[in-house]
Amino acid sequence: MRMYDVIYKKRKGEKLTEEEIAFFISSYVSGDTPDYQASAFLMACFLQDLDEEETYFLTRQMLNSGHKMDLSALEGIKVDKHSTGGVGDKTSLTLAPLIASLGLIMAKMSGRGLGHTGGTIDKLESIPGFVTELREEDFIQQSNDIGLALISQTKNLVPADKLLYALRDVTATVDHPALIASSIMSKKLAAGTDYILLDVKVGSGAFLKNIDEAIHLAKIMVSIGERAGKKTRAIISSMDQPLGYKIGNSIEVEEAIELLQDKGPQDLKELTLVLSSQLLIMAGKCKNMDKAYEVSRKHLESGYGYDKFLELVKAQGGKSLNFVQPLFERKVYAPSSGYIESFDTQAIGESASILGAGRKTKDEAIDLTAGIYLPFKIGDYIKKGDLLAKLYSSRKNVFTDSEAKLLSSIVLNQNKVKSHKLIRALVYEESGQSKVEMWS
Amino acid sequence: MRMYDVIYKKRKGEKLTEEEIAFFISSYVSGDTPDYQASAFLMACFLQDLDEEETYFLTRQMLNSGHKMDLSALEGIKVDKHSTGGVGDKTSLTLAPLIASLGLIMAKMSGRGLGHTGGTIDKLESIPGFVTELREEDFIQQSNDIGLALISQTKNLVPADKLLYALRDVTATVDHPALIASSIMSKKLAAGTDYILLDVKVGSGAFLKNIDEAIHLAKIMVSIGERAGKKTRAIISSMDQPLGYKIGNSIEVEEAIELLQDKGPQDLKELTLVLSSQLLIMAGKCKNMDKAYEVSRKHLESGYGYDKFLELVKAQGGKSLNFVQPLFERKVYAPSSGYIESFDTQAIGESASILGAGRKTKDEAIDLTAGIYLPFKIGDYIKKGDLLAKLYSSRKNVFTDSEAKLLSSIVLNQNKVKSHKLIRALVYEESGQSKVEMWS
Repeated sequence: MRMYDVIYKKRKGEKLTEEEIAFFISSYVSGDTPDYQASAFLMACFLQDLDEEETYFLTRQMLNSGHKMDLSALEGIKVDKHSTGGVGDKTSLTLAPLIASLGLIMAKMSGRGLGHTGGTIDKLESIPGFVTELREEDFIQQSNDIGLALISQTKNLVPADKLLYALRDVTATVDHPALIASSIMSKKLAAGTDYILLDVKVGSGAFLKNIDEAIHLAKIMVSIGERAGKKTRAIISSMDQPLGYKIGNSIEVEEAIELLQDKGPQDLKELTLVLSSQLLIMAGKCKNMDKAYEVSRKHLESGYGYDKFLELVKAQGGKSLNFVQPLFERKVYAPSSGYIESFDTQAIGESASILGAGRKTKDEAIDLTAGIYLPFKIGDYIKKGDLLAKLYSSRKNVFTDSEAKLLSSIVLNQNKVKSHKLIRALVYEESGQSKVEMWS
Repeated sequence: MRMYDVIYKKRKGEKLTEEEIAFFISSYVSGDTPDYQASAFLMACFLQDLDEEETYFLTRQMLNSGHKMDLSALEGIKVDKHSTGGVGDKTSLTLAPLIASLGLIMAKMSGRGLGHTGGTIDKLESIPGFVTELREEDFIQQSNDIGLALISQTKNLVPADKLLYALRDVTATVDHPALIASSIMSKKLAAGTDYILLDVKVGSGAFLKNIDEAIHLAKIMVSIGERAGKKTRAIISSMDQPLGYKIGNSIEVEEAIELLQDKGPQDLKELTLVLSSQLLIMAGKCKNMDKAYEVSRKHLESGYGYDKFLELVKAQGGKSLNFVQPLFERKVYAPSSGYIESFDTQAIGESASILGAGRKTKDEAIDLTAGIYLPFKIGDYIKKGDLLAKLYSSRKNVFTDSEAKLLSSIVLNQNKVKSHKLIRALVYEESGQSKVEMWS
């Protein structure tokens, strides 16, 4: 087989066989297929598309490129959750301990971020002493002991994805459903859990801007999971405004803790409980949404999730919950009055990134103290001169730019504005058929 | 400017500015844009297309990447001809001396072949002593002296095209009209002549299989030439059968000589005279086709073209027209009787290539003695057992494969078959409007 012929076939829009996709993955990982052929092939896939079966083949071959986590030693139901990424999304930090307190096992690998803020692993590292790299046997042991572990992805987890993502990132081939789906799902499948719940974000702070695109991506990912024999569901949730009030790294952990103490913002609570409910239903612990939600809510409000969080911190070496504080803070006041009509949520993310909360290249350092406190939601009224937000950073000369970016992201209206639905839809399969349940 | 953004824009199908295209070309030639971004960009161009203006910009920027031949020292009308390539096409060898004998100047650069046979330069090198690399001043001097020079492309002629072509060749992005047109026309414009005549081949032995595609490509190339201020025309000619009876390198020169002595095959004569006529019309030497054709025919039949050919050979160091003969020959007999309905002309080219007439990689050696003599055309009757073809090579073990390939390329019919039109159309511009004159 020659890579040239595989490129040629996809360029013509023909369907590839699993053998051809396997050849691409194995020859690219081995170095036999050079970057310039891989990038031409990826662009051809981007523009000619991959169908559901090709996407599954691609996922399976990427999965086969590396080490698969074996969780068979864990007794119990192993669940995983993945978010496609948004601003202020700290639900891994709230859901994981909550669901573990409900008796499911979350032995979870997460990534570092290349976005406006760090990823779950960066956020956790703001907890003094917290260790995110465990040996596989310790990871299994801890998951058995307390039903919960949150570690960074092992080096050999889907090496094909690491290589392909790096190439896509510089050749404008990232934002394609089949390529995104195979990247996410190969890692989720390699993680070895029984149930996979996906949180597909849609809106001004997500890479998917409209609900149809989000549902499309969700369907593809659910289909991949189900073809691979894993029960898989996806919720579609709004990213038209940041999740919660806090955006950054250590302050997102703070807010997660507040939620686990039932003192957190309503939207974060809602999303955490919906995700928890879905996992309970998938795992057969609850029959319907009302029941599952009620059980989740009670558990959260009773502090069981928080207890589990403290167990997690202790198990992974955390010494305290006293976070390093930022050296600088700036208060931002509302320049005019009105109802918040919309946010450019991505710009808010960029504002946090300017403060130092995110990294642009893999090797850049994150300021874990940096971030934004923005306690307003769409539909809220704000009066000129009121405190609108607080900006935090340990870097001095970043505030002016960050503030300007933040202010430019908010659109006010003199008339009342309706508040915004958070959960938009649920995507799952029933007897091999894709189902979409609209929630708004 | 970032290459990423240029790729992204074209991937979305948006129109590029000349600045963006200039950035691509200059950064790729300088090495700042790596191959993997260039190949992704080329695939995006392939699948999202470039419009006429973008294609012109691309051509102009490629042209600007290298040295442009300055023919201003030549007194007279400088003309050039380019064929998109076919099997048995030796018209550069017949047209160039004929048109020079008619008073136009053909100071022409040609390429080596990466096809089934060598290019014009390879063919010329089968003439003992013939030198194809001249210093620029000698090239100009000779063109002034005898109105004719045929040399290989100078090293710095459109370096961007050399780089891009090599990349396209391994990433399945060769056969796209805008990319082909910019590649051809950048070199034609760099060659510095006043008038450009294109011979776009269509049929089973050309890369374009149907007349619409051929006209489309011709229109794009004519448009580029005219935008660049050069009078440009294209004829569309059939490549549904080899041109002439001889396919190879030295035997194609032989056949060109036969034609210049008015002993050559009719189709080669027809094409040579049509091309000559078009150049005479473009250069204002003749008013209409009938007149131009008549002048060309008389000149050819009177041997003026042959005299000019001998001048060329002498000027460029040729010592004799005694070609090295092949070590081996095989006669091929017709396995059955019938009228020739069609040829797979590409397969005939491959059959010649198997004999050693072509090269697959840049550095492969060509057997200049190798080739095929096939004195039949569509519509001809052939009787079982009659001599169908002769195969020549100086390599021993190539004949069985070559013969099988050749035989598989011929389709016979028991009923009479109509002979085939050679010239299909003429494409030109009039007052900035593209015109197509169908000849069949």
